[in-house]
Amino acid sequence: MKVINLKQKTSLFTEQWTPKIIATLDHNHIYLSKLKGDFVWHNHADQDEMFLVVAGRFRMDFRDEQLWVEEGEIIVVPKGVEHKPFAEEECSVLVIENASTEHTGGVDDPRTKESYDRI
Amino acid sequence: MKVINLKQKTSLFTEQWTPKIIATLDHNHIYLSKLKGDFVWHNHADQDEMFLVVAGRFRMDFRDEQLWVEEGEIIVVPKGVEHKPFAEEECSVLVIENASTEHTGGVDDPRTKESYDRI
Repeated sequence: MKVINLKQKTSLFTEQWTPKIIATLDHNHIYLSKLKGDFVWHNHADQDEMFLVVAGRFRMDFRDEQLWVEEGEIIVVPKGVEHKPFAEEECSVLVIENASTEHTGGVDDPRTKESYDRI
Repeated sequence: MKVINLKQKTSLFTEQWTPKIIATLDHNHIYLSKLKGDFVWHNHADQDEMFLVVAGRFRMDFRDEQLWVEEGEIIVVPKGVEHKPFAEEECSVLVIENASTEHTGGVDDPRTKESYDRI
């Protein structure tokens, strides 16, 4: 059993758009990721995805709106909804999603990860 | 689609040991709860449970150790593991668990909730 300090954990890596698993919750991954710039439009057909901002802020773009998410705020992207995270400055997020979820929902991108490291 | 500010949400209720659902994530509830004092020993046979401290601090007691969890920290209690939250001062937590999880894992307690409100 261990207590995980989210900000301290984010200091252990520097790569952006590279999920780092910190724990599992039933069939879900709990991971940290650093975002900067624009990601790729994608969706996850069968899985919801929760984002919590640990440090900084990012904007979640949907096809019909853009929502800024600040430190201490969460947003849940429902299954099947196209989304694209964007961060002006580097932003650290905690993400919870089903472990079977594909990183970019089947969309090919140079940043797509097939598997995630654990830290 | 909505962005949820966790601290702001916790200001919307005062009851302690009374989960308030703020979102769902696949088959999971995401809820806020305020803890103060000692809860009841219990476990959830088939579901893991994640706690994130939104404000304050609490101690998670296990049969063989006690771990303090501070603001910005998480702890995952694995399925089947007996635990008992304790908070000296009021502490607000975000909890994620399978929606079928029983509040006190089948243990009768005056504070056991059969269903949770949404806020």
